[in-house]
Amino acid sequence: MANNKNIRAGIIGGAGYGGGEMIRILLNHPNVEIAFVHSRSNAGNPLHAVHSDLLGDTDLAFTDQLSHDIEVLFLCLGHGEAKKFLEANPIPLNIKVIDLSQDFRLGESLPGREFVYGLPELQREKIQTAQNIANPGCFATTIQLGLLPLAKAGLLGEIHTTGITGSTGAGQSLQSTTHFTWRANNVSTYKVLAHQHLKEIRRSLQLLQPSFTEHVNFVPVRGDYPRGIWVTSYQESDLSLEQALQLYKTYYATHPFTHVSENQIDLKQVVNTNKCLVQLEKVGTKLIVHTIADNLLKGASGQAVQNMNLVFGLEETAGLKLKSIVF
Amino acid sequence: MANNKNIRAGIIGGAGYGGGEMIRILLNHPNVEIAFVHSRSNAGNPLHAVHSDLLGDTDLAFTDQLSHDIEVLFLCLGHGEAKKFLEANPIPLNIKVIDLSQDFRLGESLPGREFVYGLPELQREKIQTAQNIANPGCFATTIQLGLLPLAKAGLLGEIHTTGITGSTGAGQSLQSTTHFTWRANNVSTYKVLAHQHLKEIRRSLQLLQPSFTEHVNFVPVRGDYPRGIWVTSYQESDLSLEQALQLYKTYYATHPFTHVSENQIDLKQVVNTNKCLVQLEKVGTKLIVHTIADNLLKGASGQAVQNMNLVFGLEETAGLKLKSIVF
Amino acid sequence: MANNKNIRAGIIGGAGYGGGEMIRILLNHPNVEIAFVHSRSNAGNPLHAVHSDLLGDTDLAFTDQLSHDIEVLFLCLGHGEAKKFLEANPIPLNIKVIDLSQDFRLGESLPGREFVYGLPELQREKIQTAQNIANPGCFATTIQLGLLPLAKAGLLGEIHTTGITGSTGAGQSLQSTTHFTWRANNVSTYKVLAHQHLKEIRRSLQLLQPSFTEHVNFVPVRGDYPRGIWVTSYQESDLSLEQALQLYKTYYATHPFTHVSENQIDLKQVVNTNKCLVQLEKVGTKLIVHTIADNLLKGASGQAVQNMNLVFGLEETAGLKLKSIVF
Amino acid sequence: MANNKNIRAGIIGGAGYGGGEMIRILLNHPNVEIAFVHSRSNAGNPLHAVHSDLLGDTDLAFTDQLSHDIEVLFLCLGHGEAKKFLEANPIPLNIKVIDLSQDFRLGESLPGREFVYGLPELQREKIQTAQNIANPGCFATTIQLGLLPLAKAGLLGEIHTTGITGSTGAGQSLQSTTHFTWRANNVSTYKVLAHQHLKEIRRSLQLLQPSFTEHVNFVPVRGDYPRGIWVTSYQESDLSLEQALQLYKTYYATHPFTHVSENQIDLKQVVNTNKCLVQLEKVGTKLIVHTIADNLLKGASGQAVQNMNLVFGLEETAGLKLKSIVF
Repeated sequence: MANNKNIRAGIIGGAGYGGGEMIRILLNHPNVEIAFVHSRSNAGNPLHAVHSDLLGDTDLAFTDQLSHDIEVLFLCLGHGEAKKFLEANPIPLNIKVIDLSQDFRLGESLPGREFVYGLPELQREKIQTAQNIANPGCFATTIQLGLLPLAKAGLLGEIHTTGITGSTGAGQSLQSTTHFTWRANNVSTYKVLAHQHLKEIRRSLQLLQPSFTEHVNFVPVRGDYPRGIWVTSYQESDLSLEQALQLYKTYYATHPFTHVSENQIDLKQVVNTNKCLVQLEKVGTKLIVHTIADNLLKGASGQAVQNMNLVFGLEETAGLKLKSIVF
Repeated sequence: MANNKNIRAGIIGGAGYGGGEMIRILLNHPNVEIAFVHSRSNAGNPLHAVHSDLLGDTDLAFTDQLSHDIEVLFLCLGHGEAKKFLEANPIPLNIKVIDLSQDFRLGESLPGREFVYGLPELQREKIQTAQNIANPGCFATTIQLGLLPLAKAGLLGEIHTTGITGSTGAGQSLQSTTHFTWRANNVSTYKVLAHQHLKEIRRSLQLLQPSFTEHVNFVPVRGDYPRGIWVTSYQESDLSLEQALQLYKTYYATHPFTHVSENQIDLKQVVNTNKCLVQLEKVGTKLIVHTIADNLLKGASGQAVQNMNLVFGLEETAGLKLKSIVF
Repeated sequence: MANNKNIRAGIIGGAGYGGGEMIRILLNHPNVEIAFVHSRSNAGNPLHAVHSDLLGDTDLAFTDQLSHDIEVLFLCLGHGEAKKFLEANPIPLNIKVIDLSQDFRLGESLPGREFVYGLPELQREKIQTAQNIANPGCFATTIQLGLLPLAKAGLLGEIHTTGITGSTGAGQSLQSTTHFTWRANNVSTYKVLAHQHLKEIRRSLQLLQPSFTEHVNFVPVRGDYPRGIWVTSYQESDLSLEQALQLYKTYYATHPFTHVSENQIDLKQVVNTNKCLVQLEKVGTKLIVHTIADNLLKGASGQAVQNMNLVFGLEETAGLKLKSIVF
Repeated sequence: MANNKNIRAGIIGGAGYGGGEMIRILLNHPNVEIAFVHSRSNAGNPLHAVHSDLLGDTDLAFTDQLSHDIEVLFLCLGHGEAKKFLEANPIPLNIKVIDLSQDFRLGESLPGREFVYGLPELQREKIQTAQNIANPGCFATTIQLGLLPLAKAGLLGEIHTTGITGSTGAGQSLQSTTHFTWRANNVSTYKVLAHQHLKEIRRSLQLLQPSFTEHVNFVPVRGDYPRGIWVTSYQESDLSLEQALQLYKTYYATHPFTHVSENQIDLKQVVNTNKCLVQLEKVGTKLIVHTIADNLLKGASGQAVQNMNLVFGLEETAGLKLKSIVF
């Protein structure tokens, strides 16, 4: 068990959304000290020059220098950039790396550096002994958390999934689809049945149910709000609602962030928290599973800290009892 | 062809959302004069006391009196109320009735009063000779317009549908799910795979493809905006994208409000108009159909006026060239 | 009085927000034919490639050619660009020019081309005989409509004004303040007490009350919605509420788009219309005036068409009876 | 200094917005144990039956029983209800009461129970020795924090204030002005120049500047978002911007939640935190002060906990280092 503030953490790519959330969590984490926040373009500026909500919370500044006097390094870089960074900047192997990109989620590795897929509800024990973590994506997390108990029981069939994401999922770059005038009061879809994270999802599901070869038909929707992911999946199932509830409750009984709700859920129950709520319905022969999570927390930086907690033998919830926005 | 302003229209239930939209359209309709707007609770008050946006547009007031000196009567009442109203208030049979509720959509009738299901893209000719119209529901319209060409070709299979609706779909009564604080930035579902309008949809589809017995699996979602419906449906299909486009374009070639887009669509293209846009995609063996419409216009009052135009032999688009909100 | 469709109009800068609204209005205007829509960067593309809501409404395409076979030319260009355009592209003086930029609002002119400030509620008669119109800005219109009757009566004092604008006021360029993730649920101010259109406002007010030298203290606020402007102004006043109501009602009695409401107003009463609503309150010794307008219509393109109607002797409301979005 | 969890707290009115926030904060407060959450209508139900975001965080249930085995009692009742409650339910005088209503803000008291106005930035020392706290209102807090340094320096003049509030300020009851369909994308004002909390504001300002008799002209605006208050105030001032900055920075130097920003601020910097940010501008002879706060936290329950911390000699920030929503 770690003592107070004895884990020194570095953050690479600290100026983006994921990096900002990492800073916000770690500033209040009882066991962690932020050693540095790296950003080439913002070096020398205070963190609150970019993350203006941090004014009054910290006087730390961005740096373009890397220090190896750390226990853990968080990579909050774009897809493709994490691998490049590690190749260009050799990091001592005793420093644990937690990568938020998709670069190592499908089993990719670097010399001396194997990555464990960091979904605690899938493989907590493996994470606890990992040296490096490939942190799952936001849609991948939220979809998987709705399907893992079925996969564990070998009961997955062809899946039909709708997922709705807030605009933060698209990052901070200015795009036509994140222009306020366009997105407000609007709905659209993208990469229908062809989302890039389906591979990551399939890989996890097959870990638990190796025979699973069916489609995960996924309709991703752009939502008219900044934060949070709603997922509804359904499939044919012989389970009664009671059996399904029992299956899910048993599966998640020891997981502190994922809870089965017996009432209808709505997205804002989990926004600005690291939680995932799961709700089940049975209609005719179809089993319906709803899951909700905050894409930037349980779907990114919160889960990265949860993984760090596990890797360092801390309380799984340390620093992650976050106040919900609720409204 | 009707002359100017020679159709006198009465509106029952003019204080609700549907009634308000009816008034807004008919005030500017070149061939219609509003004879009266009936509302028991608002009798004597100017229309703009309830529909405050009408200030400066009309000095008409609500009445609790019914006049039979009209050619057409629009019923903008709650489900169940339309039938009760007609039973309690005998309307001469030469007055055409256009009912926006679900009371007559499944073939129900009253003595001397048969109702034709008013989806022009399904059966325009039948509407043109109808005495009474059962106007389709908003989800039903938007879902059907994505499936009619497939049904006509006998190619419908098991359908998987996501539909997202604005808050106006829930009407003007105050409910926990229409409280601003709750609904803003929120997502939730309701009646998943069990929506009450699935019967209406199935009935139309079977008109075109009598052999159709598959499920329409429909996930209705509450959206975080007031107006508009987004629908994505997909199914297994042997059609290539080109074949499907051809099928849809041919089907809708003569329909002035429904258009096939070859670009990605987004909901605000149709908000505050009577239009429906359709977009197709093919991924693997699945054909994907997106459709969008304004739930209060093409999904309610706009379509009711479109039906009136057809019934009275007017231009189908008369009074319905509405400026899009766009933003 | 003009006959049907005998006014041919050209639009310069048709790819922006203002140009798009111009197209939407003119497509349904009973007396106007769109001769061309000019856009250098979009030449050859259909209008609906940029203004996607126009799909199904028109097959017109953008052009980079100018034709002089028109009666009126609308300039929908950025500030500074209108003057440059007219200097670089000599337009025959018999073609009337209606400019939506701020380039000619303070009395600027070009050889042979004088501009009349196009606020019909200020100087309708002057507009009716104008050759060229400098169309007012959105904040300027909405603020002035709250103050003109006081100015006419010589009763203006030091004014305190709050104005809240939708995001469309910032145009379609991608900026940090129009990023959806930033602007959603957010509030901020800009150019407080220093907005560039105060000069334009002061100039109009002094036309009516030459002695007026007091401050117009204006706090502009970025609102969390796309369309519409809310303005609240107050000043010391000896008028009773009844006297003020009388003053305002008399002033606006003959103006078809500006109406005095005796009930509390809210912005959505006018969104997507060319109307302006005015509401008065008296608290202690202060007279409070609320005004609301759609920044893209009464605050830009709608008013430009209203001016065109006046210039060509059409009904002032021709083509401008637009359906409110309401919700 | 208190030890861990040795302060037992009761909450009255735990089913409302303020009560919910109180629970959320106290559940994670290092020094507090929630002894009971009182709600007559919800007795027996788990807290998460009402505050559904608490699912997984606590198994506590509402009770209709009062226990006196507590150190502090939070009253989260409607205006007028707090006084009635204390009169009907005698609470031992050694239990400290922190009241969130307006019942005791103007110096009202009960036998044996004097209330100190709980704005730490106004009178922290007095709070530290208080037995009972009258917690300030949300607009009152945010407006005062923009004016206190001027009042302390005796420099207040006539104030012109715009305040914009989120919908949570209106509480959880269903009203026409909190209907989603109405409020989304809308703007309106209420109680202009006549808000009920002006008395409370004036009283505080006169504590610091007894000579202050000028108006605080306050325009309250309903904002189109759930959480947060924006306030802009301005007045005539001889201070330069530098002098004003110095004045404000000195005043707030020792206050951990209120910070002076030298950059432009926006509301989301403080949403879901207990912070208040202040920004100054000087234009001509006017000094402009912007302040922002979360109406449910620094404007209600967060400040109540801040007051509790001071009353019990805890760290002022204990339990209040809340993660910002940011987006």
